[in-house]
Formats: sequence, structure tokens, C-alpha cells
Amino acid sequence: MAVLQWDQEVYMPAMGATLRAQQLATLSGMAHDLGVEKELGSLLEELSKSDSLNKIEKINVTETLRVYNDRKKYNTAFVIELSKTVSESFNAWQEAKRKKDFNLFLPFLSKLVDLKKKECDLLGYEEHPYDALLNQFEPGLKTKKVSAIFTQLHNQLIPVTKKIADASQPNTDFLHLHFDKNKQWDFSLILLKQLNYDFNKGRQDISTHPFTTGFNANDVRVTTRINENDLFEMIGSSIHECGHALYEQGLPVNDYGLPSGEFLSLAIHESQSRLWENKVGRSLSFWKCNFQTLKNTFPDQLKNISVQQFYAAINTVKPSFIRTNADELTYHLHIMIRFELERDLFEGKIDVADLKNEWNKKYNNYLGLKVEDDSQGILQDVHWSHGMFGYFPTYSLGSMYAAQFFEAAKNEIKNLEAEIESGSNLPLLNWLREKIHRHGKTFSADELCINITGSELNIDFFMNYIKEKYANLYSFNL
Amino acid sequence: MAVLQWDQEVYMPAMGATLRAQQLATLSGMAHDLGVEKELGSLLEELSKSDSLNKIEKINVTETLRVYNDRKKYNTAFVIELSKTVSESFNAWQEAKRKKDFNLFLPFLSKLVDLKKKECDLLGYEEHPYDALLNQFEPGLKTKKVSAIFTQLHNQLIPVTKKIADASQPNTDFLHLHFDKNKQWDFSLILLKQLNYDFNKGRQDISTHPFTTGFNANDVRVTTRINENDLFEMIGSSIHECGHALYEQGLPVNDYGLPSGEFLSLAIHESQSRLWENKVGRSLSFWKCNFQTLKNTFPDQLKNISVQQFYAAINTVKPSFIRTNADELTYHLHIMIRFELERDLFEGKIDVADLKNEWNKKYNNYLGLKVEDDSQGILQDVHWSHGMFGYFPTYSLGSMYAAQFFEAAKNEIKNLEAEIESGSNLPLLNWLREKIHRHGKTFSADELCINITGSELNIDFFMNYIKEKYANLYSFNL
Repeated sequence: MAVLQWDQEVYMPAMGATLRAQQLATLSGMAHDLGVEKELGSLLEELSKSDSLNKIEKINVTETLRVYNDRKKYNTAFVIELSKTVSESFNAWQEAKRKKDFNLFLPFLSKLVDLKKKECDLLGYEEHPYDALLNQFEPGLKTKKVSAIFTQLHNQLIPVTKKIADASQPNTDFLHLHFDKNKQWDFSLILLKQLNYDFNKGRQDISTHPFTTGFNANDVRVTTRINENDLFEMIGSSIHECGHALYEQGLPVNDYGLPSGEFLSLAIHESQSRLWENKVGRSLSFWKCNFQTLKNTFPDQLKNISVQQFYAAINTVKPSFIRTNADELTYHLHIMIRFELERDLFEGKIDVADLKNEWNKKYNNYLGLKVEDDSQGILQDVHWSHGMFGYFPTYSLGSMYAAQFFEAAKNEIKNLEAEIESGSNLPLLNWLREKIHRHGKTFSADELCINITGSELNIDFFMNYIKEKYANLYSFNL
Repeated sequence: MAVLQWDQEVYMPAMGATLRAQQLATLSGMAHDLGVEKELGSLLEELSKSDSLNKIEKINVTETLRVYNDRKKYNTAFVIELSKTVSESFNAWQEAKRKKDFNLFLPFLSKLVDLKKKECDLLGYEEHPYDALLNQFEPGLKTKKVSAIFTQLHNQLIPVTKKIADASQPNTDFLHLHFDKNKQWDFSLILLKQLNYDFNKGRQDISTHPFTTGFNANDVRVTTRINENDLFEMIGSSIHECGHALYEQGLPVNDYGLPSGEFLSLAIHESQSRLWENKVGRSLSFWKCNFQTLKNTFPDQLKNISVQQFYAAINTVKPSFIRTNADELTYHLHIMIRFELERDLFEGKIDVADLKNEWNKKYNNYLGLKVEDDSQGILQDVHWSHGMFGYFPTYSLGSMYAAQFFEAAKNEIKNLEAEIESGSNLPLLNWLREKIHRHGKTFSADELCINITGSELNIDFFMNYIKEKYANLYSFNL
């Protein structure tokens, strides 16, 4: 299914869409049927009582049984209704977005949310219905914990963004000159090689929305998107996807198909992409090493630009409407808004019909922006139309983990920043391989974080990094 | 599986091979299991007795039941042993070919032939064990019939090739200058468009061995191969694959998954590729229309070359060692040799250990060539290592059908050659769509041939075309 989906995004001819959707639906159905087979359950139950398993084998059995039991909670009628509603909602969302009219999407979203509420009940939860949805992407994560993190984050981020808004802004015009597609492509390959992406175990292609897909640790593919009028769009997204891919290329290939061969969770996955994108790809050290190559590629456009100016430009902070274009600071305000709306929706505090008003109010309060058209507002993301509620928080948690992991890496790798500045990114990759990648899904995210950093997830690491970096960049004190 | 195989040939990174093979093996197993399910058989039996089916529905049931019953003849142990032996043989063949030593392949081939003999018995046959193998690719075809056709062909082709050998040869040097890869690629796309290949329902990529694969009629992909020192290699293979693809793009997409939505047989498939490749792509009419575009693409290389010279060069006849590089005349001598060896092998007339000697003897007798190294001789084709015996004859039969169909087309389409000369290839395509493509697998090859041409397959059409064309090109009388 992953190969079929990759092909669909990257190379499939237009007319292939209808039957491809049918093929994927057939395969989904078969996968579900195989995944709930009685014999599988009995074998897993039996194995889970065995005394002769080693630690990893025990985890593999337990985790597989957990997934099996969750899958058993769904009845076929529900699966079919959900999948049908998702298809209709996705189509309605596309039309609504094109026509910039949330009302066209509203009845479908409403039906979808009702079904997802039913899904919360099917799956069960201890504290909050939204926990059940969060756990589809981040096993064990609680709504209460996310609320606490976002409250802290909110209180600390808002003053920083205010300070930045009052400071003078760096020049970013040169990033929006014309940058030839083919030359950008060549540079993206240089970046991937520089970051030790293994082309024997993967490849890069072009797609509308950049993504990474791992068929197994020996075939992990990335895509990028090239905007000829925005140089950093490709650079940022290439490094981001490379971070995802380095994680999957580092999973133990011999455990293919088992939890010990899988990525841990979406937040941990995102920690890897954000670490490379932001801690490395937006650092001065990295560009001290690579800016000359970029200048050689685009000598006219970057003629009078210093590496310091480039570094300042790619780190500009500016509230904007679209999440995917946001800087690494205001990005989390976008996520926060989505989380709060989802939480309140599944708590029953607000109704689907209130979503648009609430969305626009929060964009005004948190980002100081007046949303004027739904396609730039509540209709911007595809997630809800796919029935993916509980997904957004993992993006922010990924950044928090990234900051905490990178701090540990700096403590443990000698002269890490000097290494990066000299073009040597292997020490960092090897550290991540050792600490994170090779373990697959044999720890929880909490356990992993404690193992690596000595403490649970703590947003201070992220905030300290943000404050130091931006106080410096924008010359203010905190 | 087709998507996975396409990806494997075209884009898969090197290290992806091992697990891809495992994925394909798993899917094969599942497909076999689904294909022999008892319930499927009972439903088909029941349907086959129904009175309420229309003609096409009846054919769909009968043909699906035939395939079902054939599949039931295999037991799982045999399927597994065959598939294991094929894997080993393919590896052994690759090594043997690299080392140019048939003896390294011999024990594996021997085991494989024994298994294929068992397969003949499992499948059953009326006249000749080899019939069972032929029918896997060409339902209903008999060894006796192929022998008769090849005897006739042999008797008529040999004198023509002798005459040509004595005539003076056209200049072909200019085809072997340096032709830039990217420019060749662009020209291949022009060719596909010119021939009405629908890019909304397909795409072209590069692969080591050119092929066509249809996931369904709305997604039919071709590949080509570019040799910078042989211009016609790309041109010939692009037009050939385009012919295959036009057939599959013309199958009734609403019958996807049913025999009425499938191609008829390998020989009929090959008739479409050969018709476009040879009757169109090697005709003077076609190049009167397209040579100027080719000249514009390669002005230096083709500066002093006339369309007549080009036409003569791409139709040169010259015995050579490698089947896939052969001209449209000696090609059939290569096929004949393979057929005779396969037939005699399964009849028990010769042994696997005799193959190499027999091969070399026949190459000397039929083509006047002394084979000096196994990789240029008996190890050149992949087919046997894949266990594909009975496949080769369909290549020649395809050419015979192509000649006979094209003669009918010329009779029925007003000024066909003038149309082609004016760049209008749609009348021919529409005729093929109407007569062949839209019918899927609802006729036998014999029925189809009679419907279209009024008679069974008759090699006179091919021989007349060959004699007229080459007597003209080489200025001799027959």
C-alpha cells in the first residue's frame, strides 16, 4: 500500500486515480481482515504468556497484541462507514477550499466528528475522549499533558513574539528572486548527501506536498517541492524530510514487520525531522559550511549576501496565516489553536458549527491576524477531512523533543557545532542512531526521553533555545 | 504486484531488492490462495449453468472458470518448489552469463526442466507435452501448428536472407554517431504523441530492458532504453512498447478484472507492438512525415542523410548473435531455434546437456554464425531461467498476425499509407481499437483472426510483405 500511495503522489497519470483508489480500498479491507483474524489473536495470547521470550520479543508480542486488540474494537460496518465518510469529506473539503466556503464542508465535517466521537467510545479512554484519538498517533499521551504543555508554551511564546514584532526585521527579499528549478534540484541532492541520506536505500522525487515514506529500512524515499520564487521552501522541506528519512533508514531492517523495526511514534518521528531542519538546517554552523556551495549555485542572486544575512533571513519570525509556511516559533501557535479546538470539540464544549468563529478568534488573539477567507483559515489543512484528529499536537511535541535531544547531543558529542561547521554530520547521525533509531518501538516516548536526557519531556529546552537564538538574531534582552 | 514490479525495474533503490522480492512472494502466495478458494469455484460452477447471462458474461464466467481449474491443478508444495527453483536458476543464470559458462547454469536448468515436465503432466495435454506450456501464454495453441508454421517460414526465409547477403549493403554508419541522451528522450516523447499514446493514462520512464505494464486501461506505462551510439535502439523500442501500450489503453476499462477487460494472448499483444514497430515505424511513409523532426533534433549527425537513406539503414538485414538486436527478418530464425530446442526437450528427443551443442549447430546452419561464447549464445535470454518455456513462439506469431492484420487494415482504411505519411495515425489506431482492443479476451486468437481477415493465421501475408519490401530495398528479384 505504501508503494501504491507513493506512486499515486509522485508518478501516477491523472486517469489512474479512480482505479487506484479502488485498489487501495481493497487492500485496506484485506489488511483489516488479516489483522483481526482469530488465529492471530490466539497465537499472540499464547505467546504473551510464554516464559521463553527475551525482552525485545516480549515487547514485540505485547505491542502487536495491543494493536490487535484495538483493531478488534472496530466492527466492519463502522470501518466501512468511516472510510466512506472520509472519502466524501475529502472531496467536499477540496471543493470548499477551492470555493473558500467552510459551509460547504460543514455537514460532512459534522458527520465525520460524530463518527470519530463514536470511535472514541469504541476504543475507550480513562480521562478524556480525545485521549483515544491522540493515542492513535502517540501511544499513551494524555489530553491533560498536552494542555499543560501548551499552556506553558503559550505563556512563554507570546512575550517573545511581541519582542520580535517590535524589533527591526532582517532583509529577506533576496530569498524571493528567481531560482532555477533544475539548479535547486541539484542543490537538494547535495544537501541530502551532506546529511548522509543513503541513496542506495532511497531516492528523492518531486511532489505537491513533500513527504517521506519508508517501505522498509532499505527503501526510504523522500520528496521535495520547488518554488522558483522562494529558495528556502525547498531547502527547509528537503532537510525536514531528510530528517524523517534518516530515522527510517536507521531502523533495524532485520526486524521489518515487527514493532522493534518500526518508528516509535509520530512525535518522535517529528523530533528527527525538526532536529535536522531547525537545529542543523537553520543554524549558523551549518551554513558556514554550505553557504558557499549555495552561492556557487546561484551566484547572481546571492552575490552581495553574507552568510550572516542568509542566516538571519531564513530565521525571520513573522505571524502568518498558513501553518506550513510558519517560522519555527509562531508555528506552535498554529498547532495550539488546532489542539484547543479539537479538544473542546471532543469534550463537547464547542460544536462543529462554532469551529470557524473560534478559529478566527484565536488567530486574532494568538497571532494578531484577521482571517478573511476560509481557504487561508479553517480550510487550510487536509487533516480533518481525512478524519485525522489528535495528529496536530505531535508536530509541536516533536519540536520540544528535538530541542531536548539536541541539548543531550551537544553534551555528549565533542564539539558538535564545530563538527557541523566542518561539514561532518555523521557524529550527530550516529548518536541519533545509537540513542533512538536502532531501538524501533521498544520504548515508550517517555522512556526514550528519560533514557537519553535523564528527564521527561520539558519545554524549557525548547524555550531556552528559542530565547537565546532570537534574542541574538533580533538584538533584544529577555 | 504490477506496480511493485514496475517500481522495481524503474525507480527502486538498489538495497530495496531483497525485501521487495519477499513482498512480491507474499503477494503471489496470497493471490494463489485467493484464486483457488473453494467458494470461488462453487460460484463459478453455479454461474456457468445460469441461463440469464448474456454472451459476454458467459465468456467471462467460462474463461475465469478455466483459469480457476488450471490453478487448482497445482498443489502448494509444487508451487513453492517451482518458485524456489526459479529464484535459484535466475541467480545461477546471471552468474553463468557473467562468466560466459553454460555449465554453471546446467544443473539448475536441468532441475527446472524436470519440474516443468511435471507441470505439463499436472496441467494435462492431448497431443504433445509442450502444448501445456504453450497454452500458458497462447490458449489453445498446438505444438503441431507451430511446427508447421516454422517449417514453412524456414523454407521461405532462408532463400531471401541468402539473396540479401549477396546484395550490396546500405550505409548504416550514421546511426552510430553520438546522439545525446536528453535529445533522444525528447524525441521519444514526440514519437509517443505522434502515435496517439495517451499521457493522461500512462507515462514513459527509462529501464534496462524496455517493457510495457498495464495496471488497468487507465494506467498503462512504457519504458525505453537509450543508447547514445545507436539511434534506432530507442526509436524501435519506443514504438514497439507504444504498440503494446495502445492495445492496453484500448481495453474496456469498465471490465477491469474480467477476461473481457484483459488482453487476448501474448501473440495478439505482440501483433500490436510489431504492427506499429515494423509496419509503421520502419515504413517509408512514417519517416517521410517524421524524418525532418528527427533531423531538426540531430542536425549535425543527419546533415547529409536523405529519408531514403535513413529508411534503408533502419531496415538493414544482417545475421547477428543476439535476438533482441535482430532485424525483422532474421529475428524469426532466432525464435525458430528456441522453439525447436524447447519442443525437442519436452518431447524427450534431446536432453538439457545437449542444448548448447544443438544451439550452436543451429546458429551455424540457420544464420551462418559460429557462436564463440555462451553469453552471446545459449545464455543470452532470461526466459528459461524464469521457467518460461513456450513463450518464444508468441514473438514470431505476433509478427505473422501483424502482417495479416495490416493487410486487412490497408483494404479497409482509405489511403492508409497516405494518412501515415501525413502524420495521421488515428485511423489505424481506431481500426485496431474497433477490431481488436475493445474485445478484450472475448474471442480466441483464431476467431479474432478470422473475424478480421476472413481466414486463419497464414504466413503468406508476412512473406509477401517481406519479399516486396526487401526485394525493393536490396534491388533483387524473387
